[in-house]
Amino acid sequence: MTHSKTTSVLLLFVCLTVFYSCAKEKNNAPFGGTWIDLSYTYDAQTPYWPTAEGFQLDTVFEGMTEGGYYYSAFQFQSAEHGGTHIDAPIHFAQGKQTVDEIPLENLTGEAIVIDVTDSVSDYIDYQINVNDFENWEKKNGTIKEDAIVLLRTGFGKFWPDKKKYLGTDQKGPAAVALLHFPGLNPDAAQWLVDNRSIKAIGIDTPSIDYGRSSTFKSHRILFEKNIPAFENLANLDSLPTSGSYIVALPMKIKGGSGGPLRIAAFLPEK
Amino acid sequence: MTHSKTTSVLLLFVCLTVFYSCAKEKNNAPFGGTWIDLSYTYDAQTPYWPTAEGFQLDTVFEGMTEGGYYYSAFQFQSAEHGGTHIDAPIHFAQGKQTVDEIPLENLTGEAIVIDVTDSVSDYIDYQINVNDFENWEKKNGTIKEDAIVLLRTGFGKFWPDKKKYLGTDQKGPAAVALLHFPGLNPDAAQWLVDNRSIKAIGIDTPSIDYGRSSTFKSHRILFEKNIPAFENLANLDSLPTSGSYIVALPMKIKGGSGGPLRIAAFLPEK
Repeated sequence: MTHSKTTSVLLLFVCLTVFYSCAKEKNNAPFGGTWIDLSYTYDAQTPYWPTAEGFQLDTVFEGMTEGGYYYSAFQFQSAEHGGTHIDAPIHFAQGKQTVDEIPLENLTGEAIVIDVTDSVSDYIDYQINVNDFENWEKKNGTIKEDAIVLLRTGFGKFWPDKKKYLGTDQKGPAAVALLHFPGLNPDAAQWLVDNRSIKAIGIDTPSIDYGRSSTFKSHRILFEKNIPAFENLANLDSLPTSGSYIVALPMKIKGGSGGPLRIAAFLPEK
Repeated sequence: MTHSKTTSVLLLFVCLTVFYSCAKEKNNAPFGGTWIDLSYTYDAQTPYWPTAEGFQLDTVFEGMTEGGYYYSAFQFQSAEHGGTHIDAPIHFAQGKQTVDEIPLENLTGEAIVIDVTDSVSDYIDYQINVNDFENWEKKNGTIKEDAIVLLRTGFGKFWPDKKKYLGTDQKGPAAVALLHFPGLNPDAAQWLVDNRSIKAIGIDTPSIDYGRSSTFKSHRILFEKNIPAFENLANLDSLPTSGSYIVALPMKIKGGSGGPLRIAAFLPEK
């Protein structure tokens, strides 16, 4: 075999190998990979805002029927904003999207994770600030257009201990003053809407504004731009800094200001 | 240039083209494509089983706050099995999966659509039978392992007209005898679990068993094998016979026998 012929055969082999691996990849797409559940279960212990009705499940029937087969069914009640849930823009921005109006395109896409666990472990009322985003970008590059931004504070480890996770296990309006947990600084929310183009934001605390907030400015800034917020996210410590894909599918409540959210991250095969 | 050299250069060019298109594909994966929402909204008109509590949304607050900003929040109640929802296996099979126990892997995957619209338009109490599956396979090949099987009856066009969609708009136990809609024949359910290996099943009617059923045998056969059912699916007429991918994310109710389901189909770019 001449040298040229050897090269040709080698190239053909490489070409076929690439093509085969490409075809294999395509065959598995888009679901060759692993799903990670970012939602907590709803039960009687699920943390809710001190002023909100909690989750309640009532048995309709459970056991053997007259027909000789097993049957179980329940009914439930809940505030929209408890457990792993979505805040629709209209929650704090008049005329903006209700939960059923948020396009699926804005609830799905590539995620980035900003980790502020160290700062929060020093100070639980920490507010994620512009520096945190700029430092992330120094290491990882500019936040991509249409990213879903997930804020990891490490507060997931306290779930569902209300005293540690919310700052209080008391109910009622007076208990709101006892809330302590980290959140997003309104300056950083403003920086995000002014300088970046993101689809949605999420956090592993009860609210995108920190527990001490009484004006909910980060909510108002984001929601005015129809950017919804995912709250009480689970398992953020299982996600890479980038390269995961989010599918966030809230209960489709007509006119709802939010609602229960089942959200999962997909890690494509390398 | 010799003939061999020309061949080498040509092969290199082909190889690079394939590699480039492969890399491009990977970069877009898994979300280069279109999402289709298969869920209806929940509101006061949402059809429920005659014996079940319907959906109710109550206003907690809506309007301007003392702080000078807009705010809205609601709370709601619902039976687990109404609107676009999932039946978890434990709904009819003791000891099988509750809704929070169904793995995400079983709620995601490639869908096939079996269309029986013509048969149903002749007879609304039609039961999808083994012949329907065998005919589908003659045209499309054997149902793939791990498929999510969607049954399209055309009943979506009646939603949310309870008289047409359920067969009755009356409530209470006596109204159950008035139910009329198509479903899956228990023989076909048995054929599926005996001969194929599917992840989940879905239908665009209120129930996987047809309206005349009083024994719910298709439920019992499927659920005994931990195959959940998606009911009251929307927009099945927008799906191709194969090649769409389902992401079905139910509300994660601890111990639930089912619950509200947000389900979407993904059509990858060709």
